[in-house]
Amino acid sequence: MKRILLLGAGRSADALIDYLIQLCHKESFHLTVADFNKEIAQSKIFAYGGQETHSTAVSIDGNDLQQCRQVVQEADIAISLLPPAMHINIAKACLEAGKSLLTASYVSTEMQAFHDEAKRRGVLLLNEMGFDPGIDHMSIMQTIERLNKEEAIITALRSYAGGLIAPLYDNNPWHYKFTWNPRNVVLAGKGTAKYVINGQPKYVPYHRLFGHTEDVHIEGLGEYEGYPNRDSIIYRQLYGLPHIPTLIRGTLRKKGFCAAWDTFVQLGMTDDEIIIDNSEKITYREFTNMFLQYSRSLLVEEKLAKLMNVAPKSELIDKIRWLGLFSHEKIGLPHATPAQILQHLLEQKWKLEEGDRDMVILQHKFEYHNAENNLELISDLVVYGDEHHTAMAKTVGYPLGIATKLILQGRIQLTGVQIPTSPQIYQPVLEELAQLGIRFREKIQPVE
Amino acid sequence: MKRILLLGAGRSADALIDYLIQLCHKESFHLTVADFNKEIAQSKIFAYGGQETHSTAVSIDGNDLQQCRQVVQEADIAISLLPPAMHINIAKACLEAGKSLLTASYVSTEMQAFHDEAKRRGVLLLNEMGFDPGIDHMSIMQTIERLNKEEAIITALRSYAGGLIAPLYDNNPWHYKFTWNPRNVVLAGKGTAKYVINGQPKYVPYHRLFGHTEDVHIEGLGEYEGYPNRDSIIYRQLYGLPHIPTLIRGTLRKKGFCAAWDTFVQLGMTDDEIIIDNSEKITYREFTNMFLQYSRSLLVEEKLAKLMNVAPKSELIDKIRWLGLFSHEKIGLPHATPAQILQHLLEQKWKLEEGDRDMVILQHKFEYHNAENNLELISDLVVYGDEHHTAMAKTVGYPLGIATKLILQGRIQLTGVQIPTSPQIYQPVLEELAQLGIRFREKIQPVE
Repeated sequence: MKRILLLGAGRSADALIDYLIQLCHKESFHLTVADFNKEIAQSKIFAYGGQETHSTAVSIDGNDLQQCRQVVQEADIAISLLPPAMHINIAKACLEAGKSLLTASYVSTEMQAFHDEAKRRGVLLLNEMGFDPGIDHMSIMQTIERLNKEEAIITALRSYAGGLIAPLYDNNPWHYKFTWNPRNVVLAGKGTAKYVINGQPKYVPYHRLFGHTEDVHIEGLGEYEGYPNRDSIIYRQLYGLPHIPTLIRGTLRKKGFCAAWDTFVQLGMTDDEIIIDNSEKITYREFTNMFLQYSRSLLVEEKLAKLMNVAPKSELIDKIRWLGLFSHEKIGLPHATPAQILQHLLEQKWKLEEGDRDMVILQHKFEYHNAENNLELISDLVVYGDEHHTAMAKTVGYPLGIATKLILQGRIQLTGVQIPTSPQIYQPVLEELAQLGIRFREKIQPVE
Repeated sequence: MKRILLLGAGRSADALIDYLIQLCHKESFHLTVADFNKEIAQSKIFAYGGQETHSTAVSIDGNDLQQCRQVVQEADIAISLLPPAMHINIAKACLEAGKSLLTASYVSTEMQAFHDEAKRRGVLLLNEMGFDPGIDHMSIMQTIERLNKEEAIITALRSYAGGLIAPLYDNNPWHYKFTWNPRNVVLAGKGTAKYVINGQPKYVPYHRLFGHTEDVHIEGLGEYEGYPNRDSIIYRQLYGLPHIPTLIRGTLRKKGFCAAWDTFVQLGMTDDEIIIDNSEKITYREFTNMFLQYSRSLLVEEKLAKLMNVAPKSELIDKIRWLGLFSHEKIGLPHATPAQILQHLLEQKWKLEEGDRDMVILQHKFEYHNAENNLELISDLVVYGDEHHTAMAKTVGYPLGIATKLILQGRIQLTGVQIPTSPQIYQPVLEELAQLGIRFREKIQPVE
């Protein structure tokens, strides 16, 4: 009996647990769900019909290497949905025990350092195996494979992805609700983004990131915008396009979101280092005013409008007002950083309401030419949450689940630290995703 | 025979070594100069006439706690001019051995944590004992003591300090040369600055710091500007003015410097985290262009002017051009961060030439009222480098040297982690500094 170990049973794990329980029943595998909170793991197994003979809940502290070793030892394969820093302990345990590991996280420097040892031990450490990164890589590679067969020359690739509120439930001026980890949204983009355009490498520091957007049109949905995400340049090598002149991977938001979010960055409200004095006792208005220059005559609203170079009666200022950042309400959060205060407020305002459904969007735009034409290929994926699972949980969980099955079936021969750019991964995974309703639509059109 | 241990014999130590050697000869003390490079320590002792009977050079690695223990054990008092992170090892060794320690650095969280233990062991860990922080605290406290005696109510204190090139040798459009550690200048201001104005606490994120200046006039020298430095709010307590409505400590630069330096911050060129790909082979012009948005039609100069909201033919763009950031010269520095590349260039352009002299400026501006009047007290210190020592070395080294003497003479009774805000320190130190030519001039005038 093959034994699967899933570490982390949070909100993002639902569709994956559902998928794995069905897989275990069908294939007579066994699933162990390990979480810091064993009750959560147990309740998820119960919710998705896991039978006692095929599923077990255990408690684990991912920071404790010894505990990681114990649970990994008893498994044939491990999937980690724990916070990325904890993947390293799990990876160590997997290497020692000769077991494969899957994550949906970006390959960190520490993870990459395991590559040679994993190769030596015949172990696969497969990362970036969720939605973004994950499905994006796979569909990009599939398209590149096809264009290569046509002997096309690819000159540009722009890939934008985002998790958003589905249009029917989009009822706030930000056109955004938290459908995913709020802390990651608040801290998104820290560091310097890198991409390449017409052969020129570009570095975008955090404080200019949200002013640095490209427009993205999604047919049937409307106007969006994307800002560059982390280091796009390394994907030239990883996608096998070492000289592609333009390559940008980015995060997608509804048009207008980034300019408004930029307000927080410009103010300094996404700072997660300093502690705001008396953060429990002050009001949101005082908090906002702390980041604005002193003035004898101007109101907080007027000073903010001046900083952001907009009119006091503008959509941007209205969005900030709607959130309550000019209100005299007390924050009530002790010893907090600006980012924690901002998250505390946003969690109240951007909360999913009962019945709300989320949506994920992914768009690739290739520019290429063959013997005759200059062409543009636009490939869109739109997935909606349904009564069973959120779109995010499905698009993160199913690729992990499918890859787990493929590995246990011996259909993936890779070892070392990998991302899903190899056809032995992306072909069967994309095929099964399509059967699960996760499929791209494609449009090819000539460009001048 | 009392034994003084000085750790660190770099450029900043010259005036202090000179002072300590004279002290040792006069008082029959002994000086040990410890540096990673023993030869440098030895040559400095030689340069300032240290006799073998009264002075020794040793080599030390400040990262090696065991080595720190050995040298501290043999001393009666230690002074550390090593990089701030190394003070912690020295402080540990001093605590164990029951010896006092002096530094010119800001009290770090780690240093502050030694307070109770230092009190228990009767050890003084005296920090912020140089120029800024150091002389500024002492002269501020002396003035506050006097104003308190007059029963004045202090409503505002602005204190700005800077190390600059003396006017006679100021021959570049930036009005700046490196008279101090270039790396510290390039990374200056990282983090979030805090101050309080008319009772309102203000937080200034790094990317807005250099646009956030106050004008400062220095009589006889002209127009300067200051930007907020670190956390000014904690000095409300430390200066014994817990409710003072306005308190700003800041860094002084020649007027116009900050707007131009802001260019580097806005571009992202002070980033010290990422590595620039192929940094050895690219030109400074390509480097600058990496931080600017792609354009088919605009030149690098034009894009930069647009980003900084100035005309292409402006003083700001001229300053950037003068540095060579638009030039086709190769950088030639492998595997470098933007901050390292910028420092590499600035070290060529802002280098002190043979015969150049530096200057330090410190200005405090107090606003207060007594029974009759609203008054303003402006206290200026201007010190020039001379044929013996730079102004920076004198103003950092002499306070440390004098305090060392006072402690060895038993004239300072404090224990624990301290900064020089106590009259038993600042009175005799300021008195001797005045004898050494380091004295403030003061002006009191009514304000409306």
